[in-house]
Amino acid sequence: MTDYILKIDCPDEKGLVHKITGVLFFNNLNIERTDEFVDRENEHFFMRVAFSGSANPEKIEDGLRGILPNTANIALTEKQIKDVVILVTKEHHCLSDLLIRNQFKDLPFNILAVIGNHDVLQPLTEKFDIPFHYLPASGTDDASRLAHENQIHELLADYDFDFLVLAKFMRVLTPDFTKRYRHKTINIHHSFLPAFIGANPYRQAFNRGVKIIGATAHFVTDDLDEGPIIFQDVIRVNHTKTAVEMAAAGRDVEKIVLAKALKFVFEDRVFISGNRTIIFE
Amino acid sequence: MTDYILKIDCPDEKGLVHKITGVLFFNNLNIERTDEFVDRENEHFFMRVAFSGSANPEKIEDGLRGILPNTANIALTEKQIKDVVILVTKEHHCLSDLLIRNQFKDLPFNILAVIGNHDVLQPLTEKFDIPFHYLPASGTDDASRLAHENQIHELLADYDFDFLVLAKFMRVLTPDFTKRYRHKTINIHHSFLPAFIGANPYRQAFNRGVKIIGATAHFVTDDLDEGPIIFQDVIRVNHTKTAVEMAAAGRDVEKIVLAKALKFVFEDRVFISGNRTIIFE
Amino acid sequence: MTDYILKIDCPDEKGLVHKITGVLFFNNLNIERTDEFVDRENEHFFMRVAFSGSANPEKIEDGLRGILPNTANIALTEKQIKDVVILVTKEHHCLSDLLIRNQFKDLPFNILAVIGNHDVLQPLTEKFDIPFHYLPASGTDDASRLAHENQIHELLADYDFDFLVLAKFMRVLTPDFTKRYRHKTINIHHSFLPAFIGANPYRQAFNRGVKIIGATAHFVTDDLDEGPIIFQDVIRVNHTKTAVEMAAAGRDVEKIVLAKALKFVFEDRVFISGNRTIIFE
Amino acid sequence: MTDYILKIDCPDEKGLVHKITGVLFFNNLNIERTDEFVDRENEHFFMRVAFSGSANPEKIEDGLRGILPNTANIALTEKQIKDVVILVTKEHHCLSDLLIRNQFKDLPFNILAVIGNHDVLQPLTEKFDIPFHYLPASGTDDASRLAHENQIHELLADYDFDFLVLAKFMRVLTPDFTKRYRHKTINIHHSFLPAFIGANPYRQAFNRGVKIIGATAHFVTDDLDEGPIIFQDVIRVNHTKTAVEMAAAGRDVEKIVLAKALKFVFEDRVFISGNRTIIFE
Repeated sequence: MTDYILKIDCPDEKGLVHKITGVLFFNNLNIERTDEFVDRENEHFFMRVAFSGSANPEKIEDGLRGILPNTANIALTEKQIKDVVILVTKEHHCLSDLLIRNQFKDLPFNILAVIGNHDVLQPLTEKFDIPFHYLPASGTDDASRLAHENQIHELLADYDFDFLVLAKFMRVLTPDFTKRYRHKTINIHHSFLPAFIGANPYRQAFNRGVKIIGATAHFVTDDLDEGPIIFQDVIRVNHTKTAVEMAAAGRDVEKIVLAKALKFVFEDRVFISGNRTIIFE
Repeated sequence: MTDYILKIDCPDEKGLVHKITGVLFFNNLNIERTDEFVDRENEHFFMRVAFSGSANPEKIEDGLRGILPNTANIALTEKQIKDVVILVTKEHHCLSDLLIRNQFKDLPFNILAVIGNHDVLQPLTEKFDIPFHYLPASGTDDASRLAHENQIHELLADYDFDFLVLAKFMRVLTPDFTKRYRHKTINIHHSFLPAFIGANPYRQAFNRGVKIIGATAHFVTDDLDEGPIIFQDVIRVNHTKTAVEMAAAGRDVEKIVLAKALKFVFEDRVFISGNRTIIFE
Repeated sequence: MTDYILKIDCPDEKGLVHKITGVLFFNNLNIERTDEFVDRENEHFFMRVAFSGSANPEKIEDGLRGILPNTANIALTEKQIKDVVILVTKEHHCLSDLLIRNQFKDLPFNILAVIGNHDVLQPLTEKFDIPFHYLPASGTDDASRLAHENQIHELLADYDFDFLVLAKFMRVLTPDFTKRYRHKTINIHHSFLPAFIGANPYRQAFNRGVKIIGATAHFVTDDLDEGPIIFQDVIRVNHTKTAVEMAAAGRDVEKIVLAKALKFVFEDRVFISGNRTIIFE
Repeated sequence: MTDYILKIDCPDEKGLVHKITGVLFFNNLNIERTDEFVDRENEHFFMRVAFSGSANPEKIEDGLRGILPNTANIALTEKQIKDVVILVTKEHHCLSDLLIRNQFKDLPFNILAVIGNHDVLQPLTEKFDIPFHYLPASGTDDASRLAHENQIHELLADYDFDFLVLAKFMRVLTPDFTKRYRHKTINIHHSFLPAFIGANPYRQAFNRGVKIIGATAHFVTDDLDEGPIIFQDVIRVNHTKTAVEMAAAGRDVEKIVLAKALKFVFEDRVFISGNRTIIFE
């Protein structure tokens, strides 16, 4: 029913909801749903409107520019199915889940390609008729990292994608890489961030003796595992679980957390504000 | 910061958000937060606005009447602390929790009095300097029920309360009673409704061998345990728990569920729509 | 490390743990883990022992018979990978999840075949090189039901399976069918049982206005949705979710609940006791 | 029904369960429940036995010493109600909850006294006829810390307590203090450890933009917030919650987590193993 999603954020001031909805009303559009939030610490306004009708996007944007502060971010989209490239290493569980959802249209996305720094997931990917690009990495020194990322850049240049999804891609990315696809790259981290940043979080969790483990989907920024969090979930564990068993149990959480986060992102429900997200569920 | 809460519900039509926020904007008021929902099955519109500023309530209501459908419900309140009478039987856990929250102002309410059909909770209540009225019930036949309820009505007539809270009040109420305090009476039921309606839900849950138990806070209507649900929560159980141990574990869920539901209600976040609730958290 | 799982249940009496572990000790076996439970209402004893070493199963069983009550159930197994046939209708999410787990050996099972009363899941199943048998059902009257089930029986006769998994098989089964595969058939029901038994549970949940929905994996018995529960889980919903959106959100719960229940069953952790289960996690 | 709890831990070896249960069997005692766990990383054995009957504790311990490794820890207790001293600062919610549970015997404990470094909780404590000792602290330098702790030591010398409970006691304790009451001191930390160690965890959580917050009950060791974890729980939060609102929502989690952890401890269900706990629920 919804034809367009409008996302606006700008410094807060009186009358914004009235004025924004006015532009849509006087363009004779049907508002299906509005969500609005004011961050009081920063006096910043966020609004998402889903609407239907026969719209002239340019005219609407002009109308909005006329009534909003100069610095407002305005995004009006009618693209409901997002194009995605997935990066993987060896673990299958997140990729499997996304391939199935792609096959059965359970998420509003379209997987254009999968890139792996190992080739173990090539047969699975090709079962679903998705191209798999095997780009092995030769080392972890700066030069190797750069060379590998350049290969990825070249490959990505062939795809007109909206988002990159790191579905258990286990290589650290350079700041250059993360900057280039800023706010377009989503990662799944196998811990309840900010606990257990970095390598082997399940081993860390086991050693610390925690009674709950989790997973976190977040936008990727320069700092490892420090980007804005989109979704998290947890499960209980107890003393009988080894680190390996925790990892096995955690995989189901990881795949579901990643899929839920992607749903929010693909449905244009997420605003990034510094290191935080505003999400209109 | 918020001075007023405005709640509106009416048949949906184009431009409602624009028009409603316009009335507030042109009265020079500061909107702190708006929440809005359209029930598509019934084409019904719900909106809550929290705002601040120097308002003339009558003028605002007149303004709203002018732009809303005739059948609109409009509620504008500046009463942020709600007055409450609590009904109890013998179990202390929900009452204890509410007495503590009242003492330390952890919930926006004020307990005017507690009424018990047993007197075991009188000493606890009086520790907190709240009047306790002991109204023993003589039986469960219709005449006894009516006589007992009449005593409660008489007592309640002395109190100017906003809500009645059944904090483990274990007597079935007559339709006359529930109608009289319709949409003002909140009950806590010790199961995850609609599972295990009626008596001894923990015993029922044990016999059925469920792996999760819960509690439900709901508005009271004519039908036992059938009113609009406000909040629910659950905990896991396993084969080692007896029905008595389930009941003990469930008490902590009950008290927290009741308190959370009351917070939503007291903060004017809840709309009742048939047998469902719309809650702007 | 574990070579054998021993499951015993019998009327409780003094010294059972001592005597049972004695049989294993004097056969020079290494106990990896013991779990034990006494149902006090029925004075019934349940024990699971995982052990390793070079065992003579017959000798162990003889030893156990010598010290246990006559009516004891004793099951000693070294079969750690269970053989399974899956029944489906049209919905893919549970089957997809199981096919992936089978492919990557994430569950200790081996899918022998999939049977569908519709053929929509045939291409998916065959992608994973699992035989798919399409057995369309002609009606819901008694004769059609019997004819259809007879076809299934014939087909099943070709497979030496340990368990039947109903992965969203949407036909009601006759008592004859459920009796024949008693304690070997596991179903996933798309509600938090015993709430919303029968058809369209998400629609029922929506209409009742619940704030939490769930899924239940259980053994199948004569009574629809009434068998012993193995595992349940839930998620929160709110007024913004339609019945269709609840169903979509519930699918992720269903697939995870079914997989967790199967893990317990395949690892020989589950005892059935009347309508309840004892599960040593 | 249970008269005694026996807790044993020792290096693992063959036949321990058989031998330990033998000692009880030949003393003609009724085992109500046994729980057992072997930590495979450290090859260490843990067992808890609840039993009833007319026991000669000395004889049982002698019997156990005869069959167990020399280094075994053996604890046999028939004290089911534990004596407790509580330390508090200004926040009431954990203390309130414990005072109510003490009053109604909802936890197997007996509060001997409450010590506060502020006096705001004195009236509440005395409502329940529990002695409150106000010991103000003059500063946070080493000398003040020592002087203050010496006052606490003196006071504690008058009480024959089993456990110290830090129910939102907001002063850092010296290693001398924590060593003195080692394995007897339980703290509630207002975050999901190890995330947000130290001061203002809710502010830290807000700044990091997490979507889930929690609380952790743990034994106190030398390192701040680093002791063995007993229980944790979490709740979801979203962008609408300020740090202050997160703290308010978190308080209900804190009080329930502390009470659940104490239940495990008071029922002799908890073993400490390095920085981890083994808990037989």
